[in-house]
Amino acid sequence: MMAQISDRFNDARKINASIITIGDELLIGQVIDTNSAWIAQELNKTGIWLRRRVSVGDTKEEIIRALDEESRDTPIILITGGLGPTADDITKPVLCEYFGASMVINEEALANVKDIFAKLNRPLIERNLKQAEVPDKCTVIPNKRGTAPGMWFEKEGKIFVSMPGVPHEMKGMMTDYVIPHLQQYFTFPFIDHRTLLTFGIGESFLAEAIKDWEAQLPGHLKLAYLPNYGMVRLRITGSDSNNNKLQEDLNSQFEKLKTLVAEWLVASEDITLSQVIGKMLQQGKQTLSTAESCTGGYIAHLITSVAGSSAWYKGSVVSYANEAKENILGVQKNTLWLAGAVSEDTVKEMVRGVIAKMDTDYAVATSGIMGPDGGTMQKPVGTVWIAAGSRNNIITAQFHFRYNRARNIEMTAYFALNLLRKLMVKDGF
Amino acid sequence: MMAQISDRFNDARKINASIITIGDELLIGQVIDTNSAWIAQELNKTGIWLRRRVSVGDTKEEIIRALDEESRDTPIILITGGLGPTADDITKPVLCEYFGASMVINEEALANVKDIFAKLNRPLIERNLKQAEVPDKCTVIPNKRGTAPGMWFEKEGKIFVSMPGVPHEMKGMMTDYVIPHLQQYFTFPFIDHRTLLTFGIGESFLAEAIKDWEAQLPGHLKLAYLPNYGMVRLRITGSDSNNNKLQEDLNSQFEKLKTLVAEWLVASEDITLSQVIGKMLQQGKQTLSTAESCTGGYIAHLITSVAGSSAWYKGSVVSYANEAKENILGVQKNTLWLAGAVSEDTVKEMVRGVIAKMDTDYAVATSGIMGPDGGTMQKPVGTVWIAAGSRNNIITAQFHFRYNRARNIEMTAYFALNLLRKLMVKDGF
Repeated sequence: MMAQISDRFNDARKINASIITIGDELLIGQVIDTNSAWIAQELNKTGIWLRRRVSVGDTKEEIIRALDEESRDTPIILITGGLGPTADDITKPVLCEYFGASMVINEEALANVKDIFAKLNRPLIERNLKQAEVPDKCTVIPNKRGTAPGMWFEKEGKIFVSMPGVPHEMKGMMTDYVIPHLQQYFTFPFIDHRTLLTFGIGESFLAEAIKDWEAQLPGHLKLAYLPNYGMVRLRITGSDSNNNKLQEDLNSQFEKLKTLVAEWLVASEDITLSQVIGKMLQQGKQTLSTAESCTGGYIAHLITSVAGSSAWYKGSVVSYANEAKENILGVQKNTLWLAGAVSEDTVKEMVRGVIAKMDTDYAVATSGIMGPDGGTMQKPVGTVWIAAGSRNNIITAQFHFRYNRARNIEMTAYFALNLLRKLMVKDGF
Repeated sequence: MMAQISDRFNDARKINASIITIGDELLIGQVIDTNSAWIAQELNKTGIWLRRRVSVGDTKEEIIRALDEESRDTPIILITGGLGPTADDITKPVLCEYFGASMVINEEALANVKDIFAKLNRPLIERNLKQAEVPDKCTVIPNKRGTAPGMWFEKEGKIFVSMPGVPHEMKGMMTDYVIPHLQQYFTFPFIDHRTLLTFGIGESFLAEAIKDWEAQLPGHLKLAYLPNYGMVRLRITGSDSNNNKLQEDLNSQFEKLKTLVAEWLVASEDITLSQVIGKMLQQGKQTLSTAESCTGGYIAHLITSVAGSSAWYKGSVVSYANEAKENILGVQKNTLWLAGAVSEDTVKEMVRGVIAKMDTDYAVATSGIMGPDGGTMQKPVGTVWIAAGSRNNIITAQFHFRYNRARNIEMTAYFALNLLRKLMVKDGF
């Protein structure tokens, strides 16, 4: 069987796979399918190209239709879900019928079920023992993390793998069994990536700026645009049977790309804007604090999501009320009265205040009207002032966003982090 | 066309839809598909049953295959993604060819593109103008949030809707245009919902607690479990041709359900935990502040995401560094030294400090070790102390989470908000 599959598919430039996720909960929006993205990443690293992802309900006809359609042109079909002990879980009997098999008790799976229930100190009922039954035409994939065994079928040169939908059980099987076994079956090319992050240029302008370079990319290198909140991540993915050549090609194209986007380049690796800032601060032995009005703690959250940020981030004063701006940050009553809370003067005083209060080298401050209410003729919803400063220098910027509240908050946070980054670059970090 | 579709599908018990998401980023696992779950929920509320979800790459053959297969037995095909201005976005030309149409400039879409670029103060390039081109056989769906117009096609009694993959653009189109127009095309039974929010009980235990009630639910009422961060939302969806009967049935079953889950009931409507707290504070004319160490501003973010929260929320001190706990919140050096930053004494002093500093009636404070580093034998990663207090009373709780950093932060934030809610309930709010 192994030779047959290899002969058939190794000639193709890419080995394809398809994912079928099974469960009514996926079709009523109860659950966000994170399994597919995880599996896709793992396949991609291995050199397998995910061709399609399909989700269907716990219905025999729908499962069979998906098995037929997905296996038509694809040699690897990975299936998750529908292996639980309750009545709505029908994946196993449907697969048994699909492969013309009969159900038999698998002794290893039975021992596993008994072991799990003994450890939980719970009585075993008929329903649980059924978990150890498998179609006699599959190879059982051990489940170290749960009672439902995985199943590996081969039919007409195609591989079908059925795994539980519970993420950590599925991930365990993929890592311990499925990926290594697929690697034995197929000869893969080498796959690698280069990623960079830009800020302040739209996807279309970026595409325009690099279109000649993109057009000359050799066929074994692909470019992906990944836009998000004023940022665009560019990723080159390459595959080749010769790893030295692959690395050389990736490096030389990546260098050219970096030169072309130098004006907007924020990072030459796959990291977040908060991580970029963290790296600069840590290398320069500098510290940071934030003073947030309209972003309401979201900048602090982006920063503290970075593991180890406590080494360079001291904290934030979320001064939502004007009294907090006055009492904690020392913004002048006069400034709030004359210029208003959403003003250049106020965000400057917020930066000065928080640097003094938190004793940091750098700070960033925001004030704006996020909506849906609170806008005026002079300051409509989306009006934002941002300041970034060090102990002896402050720069500011005004923005007019026009999104909803949630997105205005997110955009303001990212533009604030970028203003801080610009200031630090100017300061030589 | 309208009558034709109605005649054909209204007899069926359910009106089916299929989602096609287009984009290479979905197949390399770069992006988790949250759009599909959101669309599924919205369709479900309307009375449309999602039959399948398919993701394919930016490849003409794959898109056409998906259009053929998904429309075979399904009258509504919702498509997202691949409408951007760059070369890899090919959904529009593929649809144009699929429906035998020609590209024409849409004046309304053109005005929208020009308007957006004028507001951004950016020059328009050819590539952006292309965004205003649409196949001449579609009805244009206005995009208030971006440059790519949506497209509504009809062919052989089937409806095909193409929307951008950017979540807020897609959501705007679905809400403002697609759902209302689908409601005009099909005759739906009356559909309504009752939703409640529980906190502190797992999905399987909840299912056990209400299983007899669930088993007796009449066929036209369905229950959905929507779990999220220690909370489970329960939603009853009913459909009936008689609206009075539907409302009566929903009300009587909802009352029974509320009684059964009373112990864990947080809200009898579809609102967030922050909104529950905001309502209690506003009704009682009370104010709130927060003092966050390990949650790093995430609680403040959850609160300030609620529109109008400035009426009852004054702000947060994100005291990531110990100096901030001392200098701004007045936590005693001795407490930090003897009990440690992650201790009951520290979070109590943080609550007292922030109530004094922000002059609020209530406050909540967090301190913990979120990981991946920073754990010790006595206080492993996931150890968290939370305090909630008013001017004359403080309650505390300790937790041991064992997730990753991001999830530990989120869980801590929600458990902190719930502790505050419990205190306010005890206080009679």
